[in-house]
Amino acid sequence: MLYYLHNFESFFGPLRVFEYISFRAGGAFFTAFLLTVMCIPPLLPFFNRHCVQKSARTDDDTRPRKPMMGGVIIIVSVVISALLWGELPDRKLTVFLLATIGLAALGFADDYIKLKYLRQERDGVKERTKVIVQAVISVLAIYALYKTYGTVTMKIYLPFFKNPFQFLPESEKIAVMTPFFKDALFYMPLFLMPLCLIFMLVFNYGVLFCASNGVNLTDGKDGLASGCMVIATLAFALSAYLSGHRIFAGYLNIPYVPGAGEIAIYACAIAGACLGFLWHNCQPASLIMGDTGSLALGGALSLIAIMLGQQVLLFIIGFVFILELGSSFIQRFVYRHFGGKRFFLMAPIHHHFEKKGIPDSKITIRFWIFAALCALIGLATLKLR
Amino acid sequence: MLYYLHNFESFFGPLRVFEYISFRAGGAFFTAFLLTVMCIPPLLPFFNRHCVQKSARTDDDTRPRKPMMGGVIIIVSVVISALLWGELPDRKLTVFLLATIGLAALGFADDYIKLKYLRQERDGVKERTKVIVQAVISVLAIYALYKTYGTVTMKIYLPFFKNPFQFLPESEKIAVMTPFFKDALFYMPLFLMPLCLIFMLVFNYGVLFCASNGVNLTDGKDGLASGCMVIATLAFALSAYLSGHRIFAGYLNIPYVPGAGEIAIYACAIAGACLGFLWHNCQPASLIMGDTGSLALGGALSLIAIMLGQQVLLFIIGFVFILELGSSFIQRFVYRHFGGKRFFLMAPIHHHFEKKGIPDSKITIRFWIFAALCALIGLATLKLR
Repeated sequence: MLYYLHNFESFFGPLRVFEYISFRAGGAFFTAFLLTVMCIPPLLPFFNRHCVQKSARTDDDTRPRKPMMGGVIIIVSVVISALLWGELPDRKLTVFLLATIGLAALGFADDYIKLKYLRQERDGVKERTKVIVQAVISVLAIYALYKTYGTVTMKIYLPFFKNPFQFLPESEKIAVMTPFFKDALFYMPLFLMPLCLIFMLVFNYGVLFCASNGVNLTDGKDGLASGCMVIATLAFALSAYLSGHRIFAGYLNIPYVPGAGEIAIYACAIAGACLGFLWHNCQPASLIMGDTGSLALGGALSLIAIMLGQQVLLFIIGFVFILELGSSFIQRFVYRHFGGKRFFLMAPIHHHFEKKGIPDSKITIRFWIFAALCALIGLATLKLR
Repeated sequence: MLYYLHNFESFFGPLRVFEYISFRAGGAFFTAFLLTVMCIPPLLPFFNRHCVQKSARTDDDTRPRKPMMGGVIIIVSVVISALLWGELPDRKLTVFLLATIGLAALGFADDYIKLKYLRQERDGVKERTKVIVQAVISVLAIYALYKTYGTVTMKIYLPFFKNPFQFLPESEKIAVMTPFFKDALFYMPLFLMPLCLIFMLVFNYGVLFCASNGVNLTDGKDGLASGCMVIATLAFALSAYLSGHRIFAGYLNIPYVPGAGEIAIYACAIAGACLGFLWHNCQPASLIMGDTGSLALGGALSLIAIMLGQQVLLFIIGFVFILELGSSFIQRFVYRHFGGKRFFLMAPIHHHFEKKGIPDSKITIRFWIFAALCALIGLATLKLR
């Protein structure tokens, strides 16, 4: 909302800074950071009283007995900060915020059931319910973005290629653009458009599902998920800022996405909130984000990537989350199909290193370093096309 | 040296990337990172045998009993990486490398004496000798830069001001440019030039002294100095890259410094080496950098700032180091002049938080977060002018 202060520039010149994306992104970052850092200490007694799992089942021993639901504070900070610094009646931002809040509500329900009904053998929301709710929220969000921005959301950029993969509805046909050839590779009759749309929805839902659950699995060590989220969102903020800037995008030879600046502001708000949360979440953590935070943050991150058409970049920048998800999947697959063998000592992969005797703090910091390298490589692929 | 591969562009087109600053900076970063990460494990047994302080005096109990001199590996990696990726017969780079190696040698002597002569009550090189050697190395380095680049090194940019503070020798007089007024504020007769030069040398020596000893004091917790160095050098690498790029510098309205790109490469080599070192140095550390690393790294960082004329930016981006140095100074000052009172529970400031009962890992990570915030604020001041 502060964006509109720039209208009063004629009264007081420096108010023009509220028009600059970079200034508002910085403002969103620091607002979210300060909100989380300052709000957690007074709320800690409440969290300690109400949000600590009292008993635990035997197979859940790797999780520390820490107050959960810290994610609520992250999400509230992100929403406040985004509302303050975003150009408000912006459709993207509204969709992002609603989807984030929706996923946070799902995570909250999960955490709440874990907290309250633990003795009745219920481990949070049932997996099937979770997947369905995630699917509904993500499909709604992506469809809303498609309805507003049309062809923008139909783009998928590949690293090293300048042109995106894209479905472009023309008068009577759909032009299927590919990054490998300069011109449209082939045309399809227009009545196949719903098929393309469904393909796009399913693909993007897959991206959101992987990111959301990847972050959720990463949240198994103090500070691991929050630290990796800070790095990934900052990388995406930079990529969004550069993509949304005609001069920089032109010079760096990266795709120009009009209006991506607002996405940078949203990414900065998330990065700030995560960094502020990390202040209290770093080892030994005072509280953990729980599913409330991890599901919503992963979802928000993937929506940013989807809106930029950079789903493949998310795979590189967020490779830590993919690694966590992949290791769990491989472990489950090998266990089921190779007669109970274990591929990792324990999944997800951070527990594997733990079993190997590496201290917790070292695992976390090395994962951060790895995440930072992935982010740098990801940003480099933007330029090398 | 790889820079010259771009001359073979006509044989193989993609070789042109070796001309790009961004590509070489990335190469320097990853080379230095891989060198430190991979070289430390095979060398660890050697370090454990020869570089661990055997006995310790009682007041030295806060220092962990870890192998020292890990800094040797950092410096060697930086030198190799800079030689590989830099545009080699570059005067700046030669001066930077020689000064870094000189300061590393001083730190090495310090560490060596601490290791070998500990029982004879000698705590490293005498403080006076240390200051003198630092002064000689820094004055030589800065004078060499002045002799090669002249007025470039006579600039000092202030935050929020577009124009630097500068001494400009004209035909018969010296124009003293200030950031506050558009034109030269006043003129001095030319024979006062040596005075200006001495002022510049003393000022820049002061900057190097503060940075070098600041990093040295910061190196009191596992991963603290290396993590903060990664953040500070990355921020300076970005600032150097943007300053050295005519289009970006023009657009962002930051001072254009021709040839600053090579400085970005050097900064990236340092950042990579420190990040690789952090891989092993993070808590619980396998080895620590010792004075060998900290004195040289602080010196290198300040030389980068001096060459860019961004000494004040170093104060902001490297505020953690200033805080450590300042807290030691205040503690000593209060103790001496106020009848043995203590301002902090213990100096430098990270020990103050330790005495307050905050766990080591939390202190380190919070210092990193603080350093990251300082770096972001510092980079923001570049734009806001």
